[in-house]
Amino acid sequence: MTQSAAKPIYVLNGPNLNLLGEREPEIYGRATLADIEAACRARAQSHGFHIVFRQTNVEGELIGWLHEARSAGCAVVLNAAGWTHTSVALHDAVKAIAIPVIETHLSNPGAREPFRHVSYVSMAAKGVIAGFGAQSYLLAIDAAAACAAPSS
Amino acid sequence: MTQSAAKPIYVLNGPNLNLLGEREPEIYGRATLADIEAACRARAQSHGFHIVFRQTNVEGELIGWLHEARSAGCAVVLNAAGWTHTSVALHDAVKAIAIPVIETHLSNPGAREPFRHVSYVSMAAKGVIAGFGAQSYLLAIDAAAACAAPSS
Amino acid sequence: MTQSAAKPIYVLNGPNLNLLGEREPEIYGRATLADIEAACRARAQSHGFHIVFRQTNVEGELIGWLHEARSAGCAVVLNAAGWTHTSVALHDAVKAIAIPVIETHLSNPGAREPFRHVSYVSMAAKGVIAGFGAQSYLLAIDAAAACAAPSS
Amino acid sequence: MTQSAAKPIYVLNGPNLNLLGEREPEIYGRATLADIEAACRARAQSHGFHIVFRQTNVEGELIGWLHEARSAGCAVVLNAAGWTHTSVALHDAVKAIAIPVIETHLSNPGAREPFRHVSYVSMAAKGVIAGFGAQSYLLAIDAAAACAAPSS
Amino acid sequence: MTQSAAKPIYVLNGPNLNLLGEREPEIYGRATLADIEAACRARAQSHGFHIVFRQTNVEGELIGWLHEARSAGCAVVLNAAGWTHTSVALHDAVKAIAIPVIETHLSNPGAREPFRHVSYVSMAAKGVIAGFGAQSYLLAIDAAAACAAPSS
Amino acid sequence: MTQSAAKPIYVLNGPNLNLLGEREPEIYGRATLADIEAACRARAQSHGFHIVFRQTNVEGELIGWLHEARSAGCAVVLNAAGWTHTSVALHDAVKAIAIPVIETHLSNPGAREPFRHVSYVSMAAKGVIAGFGAQSYLLAIDAAAACAAPSS
Amino acid sequence: MTQSAAKPIYVLNGPNLNLLGEREPEIYGRATLADIEAACRARAQSHGFHIVFRQTNVEGELIGWLHEARSAGCAVVLNAAGWTHTSVALHDAVKAIAIPVIETHLSNPGAREPFRHVSYVSMAAKGVIAGFGAQSYLLAIDAAAACAAPSS
Amino acid sequence: MTQSAAKPIYVLNGPNLNLLGEREPEIYGRATLADIEAACRARAQSHGFHIVFRQTNVEGELIGWLHEARSAGCAVVLNAAGWTHTSVALHDAVKAIAIPVIETHLSNPGAREPFRHVSYVSMAAKGVIAGFGAQSYLLAIDAAAACAAPSS
Amino acid sequence: MTQSAAKPIYVLNGPNLNLLGEREPEIYGRATLADIEAACRARAQSHGFHIVFRQTNVEGELIGWLHEARSAGCAVVLNAAGWTHTSVALHDAVKAIAIPVIETHLSNPGAREPFRHVSYVSMAAKGVIAGFGAQSYLLAIDAAAACAAPSS
Amino acid sequence: MTQSAAKPIYVLNGPNLNLLGEREPEIYGRATLADIEAACRARAQSHGFHIVFRQTNVEGELIGWLHEARSAGCAVVLNAAGWTHTSVALHDAVKAIAIPVIETHLSNPGAREPFRHVSYVSMAAKGVIAGFGAQSYLLAIDAAAACAAPSS
Amino acid sequence: MTQSAAKPIYVLNGPNLNLLGEREPEIYGRATLADIEAACRARAQSHGFHIVFRQTNVEGELIGWLHEARSAGCAVVLNAAGWTHTSVALHDAVKAIAIPVIETHLSNPGAREPFRHVSYVSMAAKGVIAGFGAQSYLLAIDAAAACAAPSS
Amino acid sequence: MTQSAAKPIYVLNGPNLNLLGEREPEIYGRATLADIEAACRARAQSHGFHIVFRQTNVEGELIGWLHEARSAGCAVVLNAAGWTHTSVALHDAVKAIAIPVIETHLSNPGAREPFRHVSYVSMAAKGVIAGFGAQSYLLAIDAAAACAAPSS
Repeated sequence: MTQSAAKPIYVLNGPNLNLLGEREPEIYGRATLADIEAACRARAQSHGFHIVFRQTNVEGELIGWLHEARSAGCAVVLNAAGWTHTSVALHDAVKAIAIPVIETHLSNPGAREPFRHVSYVSMAAKGVIAGFGAQSYLLAIDAAAACAAPSS
Repeated sequence: MTQSAAKPIYVLNGPNLNLLGEREPEIYGRATLADIEAACRARAQSHGFHIVFRQTNVEGELIGWLHEARSAGCAVVLNAAGWTHTSVALHDAVKAIAIPVIETHLSNPGAREPFRHVSYVSMAAKGVIAGFGAQSYLLAIDAAAACAAPSS
Repeated sequence: MTQSAAKPIYVLNGPNLNLLGEREPEIYGRATLADIEAACRARAQSHGFHIVFRQTNVEGELIGWLHEARSAGCAVVLNAAGWTHTSVALHDAVKAIAIPVIETHLSNPGAREPFRHVSYVSMAAKGVIAGFGAQSYLLAIDAAAACAAPSS
Repeated sequence: MTQSAAKPIYVLNGPNLNLLGEREPEIYGRATLADIEAACRARAQSHGFHIVFRQTNVEGELIGWLHEARSAGCAVVLNAAGWTHTSVALHDAVKAIAIPVIETHLSNPGAREPFRHVSYVSMAAKGVIAGFGAQSYLLAIDAAAACAAPSS
Repeated sequence: MTQSAAKPIYVLNGPNLNLLGEREPEIYGRATLADIEAACRARAQSHGFHIVFRQTNVEGELIGWLHEARSAGCAVVLNAAGWTHTSVALHDAVKAIAIPVIETHLSNPGAREPFRHVSYVSMAAKGVIAGFGAQSYLLAIDAAAACAAPSS
Repeated sequence: MTQSAAKPIYVLNGPNLNLLGEREPEIYGRATLADIEAACRARAQSHGFHIVFRQTNVEGELIGWLHEARSAGCAVVLNAAGWTHTSVALHDAVKAIAIPVIETHLSNPGAREPFRHVSYVSMAAKGVIAGFGAQSYLLAIDAAAACAAPSS
Repeated sequence: MTQSAAKPIYVLNGPNLNLLGEREPEIYGRATLADIEAACRARAQSHGFHIVFRQTNVEGELIGWLHEARSAGCAVVLNAAGWTHTSVALHDAVKAIAIPVIETHLSNPGAREPFRHVSYVSMAAKGVIAGFGAQSYLLAIDAAAACAAPSS
Repeated sequence: MTQSAAKPIYVLNGPNLNLLGEREPEIYGRATLADIEAACRARAQSHGFHIVFRQTNVEGELIGWLHEARSAGCAVVLNAAGWTHTSVALHDAVKAIAIPVIETHLSNPGAREPFRHVSYVSMAAKGVIAGFGAQSYLLAIDAAAACAAPSS
Repeated sequence: MTQSAAKPIYVLNGPNLNLLGEREPEIYGRATLADIEAACRARAQSHGFHIVFRQTNVEGELIGWLHEARSAGCAVVLNAAGWTHTSVALHDAVKAIAIPVIETHLSNPGAREPFRHVSYVSMAAKGVIAGFGAQSYLLAIDAAAACAAPSS
Repeated sequence: MTQSAAKPIYVLNGPNLNLLGEREPEIYGRATLADIEAACRARAQSHGFHIVFRQTNVEGELIGWLHEARSAGCAVVLNAAGWTHTSVALHDAVKAIAIPVIETHLSNPGAREPFRHVSYVSMAAKGVIAGFGAQSYLLAIDAAAACAAPSS
Repeated sequence: MTQSAAKPIYVLNGPNLNLLGEREPEIYGRATLADIEAACRARAQSHGFHIVFRQTNVEGELIGWLHEARSAGCAVVLNAAGWTHTSVALHDAVKAIAIPVIETHLSNPGAREPFRHVSYVSMAAKGVIAGFGAQSYLLAIDAAAACAAPSS
Repeated sequence: MTQSAAKPIYVLNGPNLNLLGEREPEIYGRATLADIEAACRARAQSHGFHIVFRQTNVEGELIGWLHEARSAGCAVVLNAAGWTHTSVALHDAVKAIAIPVIETHLSNPGAREPFRHVSYVSMAAKGVIAGFGAQSYLLAIDAAAACAAPSS
């Protein structure tokens, strides 16, 4: 399956995810963000895709990357972390994108505090995958690959 | 990967899903439940698992199947449809199960009516996959297989 | 007016309605469900329709009958009783039906306890008739007949 | 059935209904208020009743008509339109009347915006008929006739 | 105490109060509005005041009278009935008046339905007297007289 | 009017009212509680009644006095101050009393903070007088006298 | 005390209670439902009563048993489990029964998740016993026996 | 720019606005309604439009004017004052109009009491201009002129 | 069964319960608190326990008794009456106690006014018994004895 | 009108507005941000003002520009896009500015999703102009010019 | 710094605080109230102040002490414990005091159960210090000293 | 007390605080942020600590500093200003830090607008100090020093 000329899948990470592996491991697991990036790259490869993998604590930067992905990418795997529940700006950015955006979470927000039960990303996204730790990303890569290349 | 002696994955479907392919296709897609069953079986096979695939419009029957899966199954893929948002009894049944339960939806409830934004299943489940049409089931099978056989 | 070859009107009744005539007569009146069935049959006859008249305390059975009515009936008169206010599954079943569904109640839910002020059936039904005791059913039959045979 | 000496049924219409047939026909249908009046008169006739048919955009006028109907009428068919959802004064006027008041709507308020889900009229009325377009009025006339002359 | 040259106290009554004595006497008592007017006139007289006593079912008329009272009256006794709980316009009219406005009710709204627990009049009024039947008006006249003539 | 052998009117005052005249005079006025007691005594006298006048900061003491008034008094003027809005125990004590209880306030709670808009006393009291400063008590004495001696 | 000719006490159990002893023992204890049945039978015997003891995961079946108990039983001990908090249909069934219904729970719902703080059963039941594990049932049998045979 | 043969802009004012300049000038400014009318007329003139300028305290009258404007006007500048926040009837009238309706306020409701944060007019209007005192009207005239004559 | 050397069971009663037998007998029954004390003492005796039985209208006194029971008692039967629904201080006192506290009510709060549906005691108690009149206390004594002496 | 030495009007744009013309044109129109900038510049010119026109996806940058405008500008036209509904920080920045800030939107947030009905900007702004597409900016420039140069 | 002739700082403690050191030490720490008193005394001394240190479980007693402190003290450190969230009476007592009142808590109520998120004390206090265990008191003494002697 | 080799206390300031002294001085006081920094430095010095003092208007920068402080600091004094009430991302950053974080405010949010009554920082912080103007910072330094060096 050689589709490597295709546009890449963007894997975009929001605030505090740079601490992964150190912060509240009983909730978020022990894999670091670098571990997850490597696993995502391998999984995407197996579907014939490249990835662009980034993290930021600045909301505006994430919005900019979503704008970039509009034309440069074929799909987005988006873990917006805390902004998921508060950012209408992010919601608007996702709404502005025609390619599929897959909402992704390490933990299951629906099983945590009430203020994590609202998702502005969900209201605009193609689908959601949450609760499988680092593996949530891999399933999301699968989903993104399938959405981006339905006929392959 | 020959794990076929392992316990099966239960794929359990709630009310109205027997109408799949006929009912509101612009929301739920055109695949029938039989199409989905066949695809799930093939996907599970590729991970070395069998599946038990069932649908019911009677809440008590679904609760009974969850009880059965406690000892007879290795994981559950659960699309509880309308009960997702109203049934504390189902919530208790999921809570009573030690094996992983994967909440699954064809559409993305978070992007639909407000009364679909509460999920009693989510509060007790391992994780959620939603919004990818028939493919949500395949990703859920992948997740279930990974949870059930982490060391494989 | 000889339309007796037409598909029947389904008159479907939810939980506790089998007790009609015995239970809280100051709210629900003294007619039994059998009395109502007879009156409905006569009224439908006068419009040239047959009826299918059923009652159940099992939600899944009612959902099944709604599915059956999709192809076998021309309209549904639905008194979902207590489920009216709690069942998203029922809402989805009504949504899945192209023929008109007339929500019917003996008493006027809007004039009773607050938890009867929300109706998941109403959000999907063609119309509502409530508060006229046994006569609510006859008016609903009239409405169903008119909806089902607008050109007659 | 010659009851023409009986008191008339009042058919009272609230704000904006004078625009019927022109305003949002996809919701309210194409019949004008004059069409509805004629159909109501004929239907009432068939039950041996006269009608008094009026429309106003002034809440106080409608309250006055309800006071008048207390002694001069035998029943009221009331489409209070937008006031249904906001007027406690109207609620009090309906409460003050011993003859049956039938709440009537062209569309089904329960299937529209949330602010139409509360009905102050419903909390005081005998019953509700809603969602059948112009035919809602005819069914309401039937119900009013039956309430007003139960032994006929 | 001869203050009869002073400006009158306005006693203004809202919707349905013309029915007093006939409507729900177990809540509102058996005195008619004319009885109350006579009693108010006598009581005001004893304080050296005239009164202007009116009733209307048209909100705009009541607003107009409040505007009139601004310059022509020395105080207002206001029983806004059902509008008490719904009219921001009335609230604004009371806010626009410098002379004291005494909110008055025959029954005690705080002990009735929840939708009578909010009072837009109360948020702008000088004080409240409620629950003493016709005598509420007399106590309100006393209060109005005391407010209007603090030094007498 | 010599009714002095009659049972007394209890005038009971809740927390912080001992500070009257010193505390927030722009809200509560400059009269002290002793001033009010004297004025109440005189007013009651003019109706042929004695009074029992007390104040406490201890809720249980006020409850005890209400119990005492059940048999020893003919009516109660009750300014429960802050407890008005929080004490179900006080509500129950008022409910337990057959003689009329008149809820009284110096200021108008309905025009103050939202947490003063709920009154547990009001739900059980005969009536309310509020917003006239020290004069609220005198009007309440008038009301109590009228309730206690309707035929005098 | 030989009352064995009397009608039996119905002990009715809702969803998931068949798992008792296995499911979340830290909340529900280690006694199985069979253990509880035996203990109930013995306790009832000591009061001179027989029992009918059943469990179901199907709401409609429980409603049917409540209907049966109306004429065949002298009291009901009802542990509706998850339906307690969601079923208006069950509420209506309890309302329809003249014999005393005792709401019973192993754990104390008031000390658990907020969605367990509403009880539709409680709004219609005679009384509640909750929080004593298996012993809740025995206390409920005592209460049922006392209600059913007050003069014994 | 001579468009004076065009249909006029309706400038419609709701309750209490006749008091402008006298009532709460710190909120609403010192300009009278006549001042505003003159300024509006001049501003409209500069765009080549006539205006119809009216005020009423009777809701039904305002509804009638909106109906009139449907065919006789080219746009509406609507300051519904207190009804903005409470009138569904007004909302329906605005909905029934095809020409643009510009919601206008002297003050900024979003910066005032919570009950002014809901606008039934806004849900149906073309746009909103608020917070500039008398100048809000002039900006609204500009907006109305632009909407009505986009190609001029 | 001679356990009389054991620590006593505290039976603690909150506000207004001293009026028992006189106050609202249709809700609370005709037994006096002295009757209940005697019955409790006998019932405890039959389990080999002494009791300490007290009532107070002063919240602080009840808190003090709960502190005393911490070391001097083996269990608490607590009817906090009106404070049940309002006192966080009481909640904290119950939380501070290691011995079992049994919440007890004569009537069934869940079937009364909404403000009795919240229980701060319930959130911290071992269990609840409510709705059986004076017998609620005897069942609570049984429960307390069983909790305090599980192995006897 | 030569006021070109005056301080400029700041036109500040929030997140996603750089996509204007491409993103959801049925809501936001087809004009690009550069088109709007040119039109604003011309309109300001006609009033004798310069403008500073900027866009950012970083909230902190927008806050900084508002601080800069405090002393360097004469007024602000602010389209905060998605932050409008979520940013208290922005609210505080607007509050901190003495020069007039005009809230501006292309669409009418009040007529869109509920989460766009709250505006933190509105609570602190001078006024609002919304719903006129690109022309909203021009009206806002007019308003800003009028506010900044009232005597010109 | 010799200010010992100054008025003392009142340190007032509410319900259950006498159990400090024994009750829920994981939340409230292991220091006893006597330990805290000693530490406070020393800290106050270092600022040149005496203290009055008291605890009560009776709300009325605490209110009385606040009244006493009005004239006898220079500042109040107030830990109202459970009453913080429920007592409007206490709120009024704090409002009645001109000297600064510092709300103090051992734990951080904002991080605990929702019913601890409302503070009636906070609405009237000068400031809040919470979450530092016993040290909260010392910081509060500092704050009180600074408030009471700003120029020292 | 020479502890200067210890890790510093981070004093981190959120949006708009750079304007301190100029912006709304009636709420925030006249001290500039530089004044506060100097005072903090002196106060920390007196405890043997250095400080790192920073301000930003960019949320991501503040999150980054909190991450830095995790290993480089011994405590954090955090005035998150407007983000306090809206940022779940900040909440997560505070949660991720083991060293104590002290929420600090110049004014008392609990006494201001409702949208300042929710604090996401508070839900994760060690404690809160609010309402003492610039001195809030000094008290927070004291608290931080005490937390960081409990045994000194």
